[in-house]
Amino acid sequence: MKKTTPKSRSVTVSDVAREAKVSKATAARALGGYGTVSEKAHEDVMAAAKALDYRPNELARSMTTGKSGIIGVVVGDIENPFFSLAVRGISDAARAAGFNVILANSGEQIEAEKAAVRLLIGKRVDGLIVTPSESRDVTHLRDIHRSGRPLALLDRALPDLDVDTVTVDDRDVAIRATRILVNAGHRHIAYVTAVDAEGHELRDLSQIYTSSVRERIEGFLAVCHDAGITDPKRHVRLGATSPEETRRIATGLLSTPDRPTAILASDSLIGLELFKVIQALGLSVPGDISLITFHDADWTSVTSPPITVVDQPVYALGKSVAELLIRRLKGETRPPERLILPTSIIERGSVGPPPEEVTGGSRTKPSSD
Amino acid sequence: MKKTTPKSRSVTVSDVAREAKVSKATAARALGGYGTVSEKAHEDVMAAAKALDYRPNELARSMTTGKSGIIGVVVGDIENPFFSLAVRGISDAARAAGFNVILANSGEQIEAEKAAVRLLIGKRVDGLIVTPSESRDVTHLRDIHRSGRPLALLDRALPDLDVDTVTVDDRDVAIRATRILVNAGHRHIAYVTAVDAEGHELRDLSQIYTSSVRERIEGFLAVCHDAGITDPKRHVRLGATSPEETRRIATGLLSTPDRPTAILASDSLIGLELFKVIQALGLSVPGDISLITFHDADWTSVTSPPITVVDQPVYALGKSVAELLIRRLKGETRPPERLILPTSIIERGSVGPPPEEVTGGSRTKPSSD
Repeated sequence: MKKTTPKSRSVTVSDVAREAKVSKATAARALGGYGTVSEKAHEDVMAAAKALDYRPNELARSMTTGKSGIIGVVVGDIENPFFSLAVRGISDAARAAGFNVILANSGEQIEAEKAAVRLLIGKRVDGLIVTPSESRDVTHLRDIHRSGRPLALLDRALPDLDVDTVTVDDRDVAIRATRILVNAGHRHIAYVTAVDAEGHELRDLSQIYTSSVRERIEGFLAVCHDAGITDPKRHVRLGATSPEETRRIATGLLSTPDRPTAILASDSLIGLELFKVIQALGLSVPGDISLITFHDADWTSVTSPPITVVDQPVYALGKSVAELLIRRLKGETRPPERLILPTSIIERGSVGPPPEEVTGGSRTKPSSD
Repeated sequence: MKKTTPKSRSVTVSDVAREAKVSKATAARALGGYGTVSEKAHEDVMAAAKALDYRPNELARSMTTGKSGIIGVVVGDIENPFFSLAVRGISDAARAAGFNVILANSGEQIEAEKAAVRLLIGKRVDGLIVTPSESRDVTHLRDIHRSGRPLALLDRALPDLDVDTVTVDDRDVAIRATRILVNAGHRHIAYVTAVDAEGHELRDLSQIYTSSVRERIEGFLAVCHDAGITDPKRHVRLGATSPEETRRIATGLLSTPDRPTAILASDSLIGLELFKVIQALGLSVPGDISLITFHDADWTSVTSPPITVVDQPVYALGKSVAELLIRRLKGETRPPERLILPTSIIERGSVGPPPEEVTGGSRTKPSSD
C-alpha cells in the first residue's frame, strides 16, 4: 500500500487519555484490549478514541507504510513433518530479521488455500509464503502478486506466476532414486504419490497439477524408459492422500502375484504406511520388496532395516524462501528468483536385488522373515 | 471490546468510489490490496478513504463487535507431532463452527510465548488457545482473561488461572506406565523429560513449572516409592529439550555399569533418541533395557520390537479445548471448565523382565543383539 500524507499529526494514546480523563495506562489497556479496565473507563476511552479518530499504532503503521512486521505462511499440511520442519526454517529466518510468523493450513485443498490466503491478507501480513496446492487455479495468488504485496512460493513452482520460488531438484533426485533401484536389478518398480485424483491410475501427466509431484513422476518414468521397462506409467499410483488410502493402494499393489519388487514413496507418510503393509503381509524389506521414501523422517532410521531416503533440504528450503521474501520486504527490487536446492540420497538398508525369479515371469512365493 | 455507538452511518466502499471518481470494483481492489489498480486510481482511492475516514469492514466489525471469526493458537513446538495433531483437532472443531485458525509458535520459551500472544491479540483474534510454557509467569495470560477475551489452556493447567482448560490425566497415566515396569520386575527405572533446567538432576519438584511435567514425575515417584525404591528422584533426568541434549543424557545414563534396566520417556522425541542411543550402544530392547514412551508417534509401531506407548488422546484434546472456547465465543456464560481426558497405554514389545543380575549389584555385561 502506498504512503499517504496524513492531514495532521497522529492521535496518540495520551491524546485519548486526556480526552477520556483517564490515565495513559488505563487508556492503553482499554485500547489494547488487555488488563483490567472498569466498564465506565472503557466506554469513555472508546468514545474518546472514536471522537479523535484514534488509530492504534499497529494499524496506523500498517495503513501508511504497509508494514506489520508479520509474515503469513500457508502450508499444505502442518501434520506432515516435511512442512513442520520447513516452518521452523521460515521461523528462524523471520526471527533473525525481526519478523513474526503466523500460520494457516490449507490441507492441500484449493478452496481452503484461498480462504487461508484471504485470512492472512485480512490480517495485514507484510508478505506471504505459500505452498500452492495446485497450478490450475492461481488467481488468488496472482491477485496478491499484482497488488504489490510480496509473495514467495515454497516447494512448488507455478509456471504462470513469476515470483520468488524455492524448490528442490525434484525431477533430478527422482531420477537418482529410481536409478538406485534399476541398478539393483529391479524392472518392476512402483511409484506411490499423494495427489488428489479420480482413481489411482495415471492416465496422463497433464492430470497432475502440483509441480513437485509431476516432476518426480517425470524423473521416475524417464529412468524406467531408459531401463527398457514397458509402459512404466501403469506402475504409478496416485491418490495416497491419507493413511487409509495409502493402505488400500499398498494392499492392492502387494497382494497380487505380479507385485512390484521395488517401491518409491513420494513422502514419508506414504513410506510409513507402505512399510507397515509390507510387514503385515509377511513380506521382508529388502528381501521381497526394496523401498525408498522421500523425506528423512524420524521413523526411517529406526526400522530394521533402516530405510534408504531422499533427504530433501527441508529446513534450508524454509529458510531460503523466508530470506528471499524478507529481502523484498526490506525494499530490495529485483527480478523474481527461482532457487532450486540440491537433494541428497541417504543409502541405508532397504534396497537389495529383486527376489530370485523363476523363468516364465512368475515369481517365487514371498518368504516371511 | 464493547459496542460503541457510531456517530454516523459507516462509510462504504461505494462512498469511497464516488469520492475518488472510480468504479466500485476499482475502489474495492485498491482498498483490499488485491488485483490490478493503476497508480493514479490507487492514490485517489487512498486519499478518498482518508478524507471520508473509511474503515474496512473487517476492522469496523472487529472494532464494534469484537468478532473477527478467528481463533489464535499458541503452541509449544509445532515440530513436535503431539502439537501438530492437537492443532488438527482444534482446526477441525473451528472449521465445523465457522471459525478460522491462525497459529504461532512459542518454542517453549516464555518470552516467545508472550510475543506470540501479543501478536495474535494484535491481530484481533476472537479468542486464544495457549499451551503455557510455564506456570511462574502468567501475567500476560491473566491480562487477557481479565480483559474478557476468551482464553483456554491446552494440555497444561495453571493453578492460578481459572479458565477453560483441557488436560490429560498425566499423573494417573504415569502411575500406570511406571507400574507396568515395576510389575515386570524393574527396580532401577529412569524417567527422562523435556523441561528447561539447570543441570539434569531433579532437586525438588517445586523447580518444575510445567504442570504436565510435574504431575507425571509425581506419578512416577509415587509408584517407585511404593515399590520400595530408595530415593527414586535421583533417576529423574531433566533438560531433554533437544535431540542433542537427549543423546547426552541417554549416553550418560546408559554408559555406566549401574545403568537403569528400564526407562520411561516423557515424549516421543525423547523416546526416539533414547531408542537410537540404546541401539548405538549395542544394547537390546527389552533384553537389556525396557522402554515406554509417551505419545503413539509414527516410529513407535515400526521398530523391532515395537514400543509400548502412553497413547494420549491428542486429537480429542485439541478438539475439546476448541469446542469449549467456541461455546464461550458464541456467548455461553458459565464457570470455567477443567476437563481431564483419560489416557490409555498400548502394550507392544518393549517391556520385559530386567536382565539377569549377578549377586552384589553388578550386572552381566551388555549383550549385543
